[in-house]
Amino acid sequence: MTTTAFIGLGAMGDPMAAHLARQARHDGAKALVWNRTTTKAEAHAAKHGSVSVTLPEVAQADILFTCLPTSAEVDGIIGQLAPHLKRGLTWVDCTSGHPDAAKRQRRQLAELGVNFLDAPVSGGTGGAEAGTLTVMLGGPAAEVEAVRPHLAFAGKAVHVGETGAGFAVKSINNMLLAVNLWAAGEGLVALANSGVNVSAALDVINASSGRSNATENLVPQRVVTREFPCTFALGLLAKDTGIAVDVVNSVKGSAPVIAQTAALFRAAARTVGAEQDHTAALKLIETMNQKEIK
Amino acid sequence: MTTTAFIGLGAMGDPMAAHLARQARHDGAKALVWNRTTTKAEAHAAKHGSVSVTLPEVAQADILFTCLPTSAEVDGIIGQLAPHLKRGLTWVDCTSGHPDAAKRQRRQLAELGVNFLDAPVSGGTGGAEAGTLTVMLGGPAAEVEAVRPHLAFAGKAVHVGETGAGFAVKSINNMLLAVNLWAAGEGLVALANSGVNVSAALDVINASSGRSNATENLVPQRVVTREFPCTFALGLLAKDTGIAVDVVNSVKGSAPVIAQTAALFRAAARTVGAEQDHTAALKLIETMNQKEIK
Amino acid sequence: MTTTAFIGLGAMGDPMAAHLARQARHDGAKALVWNRTTTKAEAHAAKHGSVSVTLPEVAQADILFTCLPTSAEVDGIIGQLAPHLKRGLTWVDCTSGHPDAAKRQRRQLAELGVNFLDAPVSGGTGGAEAGTLTVMLGGPAAEVEAVRPHLAFAGKAVHVGETGAGFAVKSINNMLLAVNLWAAGEGLVALANSGVNVSAALDVINASSGRSNATENLVPQRVVTREFPCTFALGLLAKDTGIAVDVVNSVKGSAPVIAQTAALFRAAARTVGAEQDHTAALKLIETMNQKEIK
Amino acid sequence: MTTTAFIGLGAMGDPMAAHLARQARHDGAKALVWNRTTTKAEAHAAKHGSVSVTLPEVAQADILFTCLPTSAEVDGIIGQLAPHLKRGLTWVDCTSGHPDAAKRQRRQLAELGVNFLDAPVSGGTGGAEAGTLTVMLGGPAAEVEAVRPHLAFAGKAVHVGETGAGFAVKSINNMLLAVNLWAAGEGLVALANSGVNVSAALDVINASSGRSNATENLVPQRVVTREFPCTFALGLLAKDTGIAVDVVNSVKGSAPVIAQTAALFRAAARTVGAEQDHTAALKLIETMNQKEIK
Repeated sequence: MTTTAFIGLGAMGDPMAAHLARQARHDGAKALVWNRTTTKAEAHAAKHGSVSVTLPEVAQADILFTCLPTSAEVDGIIGQLAPHLKRGLTWVDCTSGHPDAAKRQRRQLAELGVNFLDAPVSGGTGGAEAGTLTVMLGGPAAEVEAVRPHLAFAGKAVHVGETGAGFAVKSINNMLLAVNLWAAGEGLVALANSGVNVSAALDVINASSGRSNATENLVPQRVVTREFPCTFALGLLAKDTGIAVDVVNSVKGSAPVIAQTAALFRAAARTVGAEQDHTAALKLIETMNQKEIK
Repeated sequence: MTTTAFIGLGAMGDPMAAHLARQARHDGAKALVWNRTTTKAEAHAAKHGSVSVTLPEVAQADILFTCLPTSAEVDGIIGQLAPHLKRGLTWVDCTSGHPDAAKRQRRQLAELGVNFLDAPVSGGTGGAEAGTLTVMLGGPAAEVEAVRPHLAFAGKAVHVGETGAGFAVKSINNMLLAVNLWAAGEGLVALANSGVNVSAALDVINASSGRSNATENLVPQRVVTREFPCTFALGLLAKDTGIAVDVVNSVKGSAPVIAQTAALFRAAARTVGAEQDHTAALKLIETMNQKEIK
Repeated sequence: MTTTAFIGLGAMGDPMAAHLARQARHDGAKALVWNRTTTKAEAHAAKHGSVSVTLPEVAQADILFTCLPTSAEVDGIIGQLAPHLKRGLTWVDCTSGHPDAAKRQRRQLAELGVNFLDAPVSGGTGGAEAGTLTVMLGGPAAEVEAVRPHLAFAGKAVHVGETGAGFAVKSINNMLLAVNLWAAGEGLVALANSGVNVSAALDVINASSGRSNATENLVPQRVVTREFPCTFALGLLAKDTGIAVDVVNSVKGSAPVIAQTAALFRAAARTVGAEQDHTAALKLIETMNQKEIK
Repeated sequence: MTTTAFIGLGAMGDPMAAHLARQARHDGAKALVWNRTTTKAEAHAAKHGSVSVTLPEVAQADILFTCLPTSAEVDGIIGQLAPHLKRGLTWVDCTSGHPDAAKRQRRQLAELGVNFLDAPVSGGTGGAEAGTLTVMLGGPAAEVEAVRPHLAFAGKAVHVGETGAGFAVKSINNMLLAVNLWAAGEGLVALANSGVNVSAALDVINASSGRSNATENLVPQRVVTREFPCTFALGLLAKDTGIAVDVVNSVKGSAPVIAQTAALFRAAARTVGAEQDHTAALKLIETMNQKEIK
């Protein structure tokens, strides 16, 4: 019987932990939850049958999942849990973290007899609720295979490389999201200023070679509608693009478009607001061109 | 009975004209073809039942399609055909042309009693053969609707705006293709240099938010395989990104990522070879990073 | 006796025409002036001894200087003067114009028996007042040498190539000004955010390899002082960077940093204000980084 | 009597240490030198009157200068000298190092009773020989003032901020050098391809607002002559631009032009050769545009 624990019941973590609770119920096992705001954990327990516990109790699980804003918060939890961690525990960090942090955290936890895997997820809140998230795992193959049956929130789980590789791939994925989204914004605002109907342009682009997740889903659903519903904050995407730049720099890579786009997303987070939806980055493009994309 | 004519039996034009011939056969009408190299037109006639004619005879069709490398070649054909053009003919230019050229050509042909529509296509040689191309039409709505039933090679045809709008949208579509492709190259080469398996990374990216036509189709099929089959030349894509920059500039737009990417594709065409497949642009990224994407 | 005429008594043109008047007085010749706002021409005549005339009278000079915002205004004047122009007149255009316009204007005026030289100037209002402007001349060598003795406002006059070359060099000069200025802004705002004293940083940079006219003069005198005195409008510099991009594109060049900087200056003109001093472009950098450069 | 010591007799260090020896002779003091290759130190002693000593003996000086390729080599020397360092010694690091390294090294040496100042220099081998280098000092004001009289190789020494500020300013200075140089290359190659004489263009630019150290000195002396004499390696400038990017990122700054230029210099170092002169970066621009700048 494997006991899981989940720390970080945010927009992503809450439904992810619900899938763990569902599987635990099915297996006759226990799914512990902890959150900085205790009431959220208690509500989760009430709603999904998980068990709301204290932080030290979490440390007695077999598999501990974390899903926090950045690697810095994971460092904070490691510090608090260090005296309590059960030897043999596997720590699966679903944060969109930093590859360098993963390597350091793995070394640090190894001294306490704890395994650490980086396991960021993609798919948004929709994928988290549907249990169809894509998980990118970094770490030794044996440890990855051992946790694979317990990723109840995943539709797909891929072992992408050694420790840190999961975070690296996630950052590049989000960087591509950022580039594709930004370029779509630049192109569409120029068409709008040329008198072209933006929706007609999206219609043909999405049946053509320039299509991407950004043009197929994000721009029509969030930008053209002017709704910009906040499911993934611009400040977090800007942070992820910064990690991607670090990934490039750590191999002394040359990536001029990635470098520029990261700078522009940082500017967007500063000028549009880090707490806005990530698609609101295009409002900076709209300001730069004095035209709305609609 | 509507007689069509087709000029430019290249990799795209040849199968497009075949669809026109098939429809003509069905309608009991005629589909004329002309090509600079006469043997290509004769082979087309023999294989598809089109009629190989002289250039002046082409000018007697009801609808004349052109599909040439650039607007300059269309200008050349206009010059040759001017004395022969039947009044009331509609000229449908499927070239990936320039919006400014479209406006000029429409004015020039209007003086001869000929309608001009810009009607570039997307979908590649595969789409041309399947008859599922996406057509982006620019010009007056009535003229667009009049030719719509005769676009036998199209899976989708969208009226995107006034004269030039078709070429503008096409150039932005191809620009997005260029950006998405280039950024994928930059990101994947950094991952490769970090020791991540490129195919595993593509696998998760294509199940995640960073996916695009470039990551789903072009990079796995053409780059990772090291095949780079030439179906769309790098020099032509570089030309299209230049048109996109002109579209931005004509509205005094600010599009830094588009501007940068156009410059990089021009450099790629110069250093890798304009006649290579467009995906071979990533060879410049590989040189810049001393690592292959595979 | 050579009669000169000057059209465009703006911030640059007014003191330039004053030098022509001074030389005319010395030579016993005449220096005509014309301005859209007649009172400016009359004030110039009263102050400097030039002769305020009607537009057709200007066309009877031997050498006609124009100094206008863009080539479009020069086109306008050509249209108005065409019926009046004296055969054998040399038109010296000191506008920061477009190379393509120069070629067209030269052809157009040649049909009227008039020579056209592109002759943009650099040195700012200070150089115009001191009569130390640098002039970049494009056109046939013999015509350039013929006007050289009459460039009373010049400290240096260089024949840089055929028609259009003067405008091309001017646009690249202003583009380098734009790049050097913008990069200084990016670097200094990062130092300011790191707690480094900006003036101390400028002090060492200006004694080091990173120095430029931007760091030696513009940033300390206009940005750090927060004065941004408007002697050269941001909108005009943004226009010049657009011409530089056209120069690059006309030779199918690859210039990613120039391309990016032109896009950023266009954004700056849109967001900060086209009528502000060109150094106020750095206010966009300040917004992007939430920190003043001081 | 202050004893100085100098580690790192490279192209910069050798003439810098000669100035220390000259001052020591004048003061009746001692100037120790050490180099990994002992014969270089012995030659220095023979030529300049310095004293060639063993590494532990260096640690007994009052002021110890280091001038090494990167902060990593300084870390190596700290490791070797740690057991020998005299308490109260001041370590003045003239390497173009990393601000983060400076902070770490200062903490590490403080535990041994040693002061650490970052003190990178600018001025090239010419400035080193003439004793006119510009020094950018980071650290507590009192310590900076205490070493100021002993900077015999300096023409100017400026206290720019706390520990790390010297390295930060140096990296931004070199970044501006890189941007100004690269942009000049992009602009001049476009002019060359337009048929403009490059030397004439440089002549007017250097009398105009676009001038910089790059256009005034580097391009005419090293690029146009095709000599590219190696006094400062491209690989080291690429490294410095990487440090500048780190400075920007450490304050979460947005600097798109700096970001792109750093990527392009890394590509240049990879494709042209890290051991070439830094001005040879423009050979990548020449390849991208198929034209030499001359």
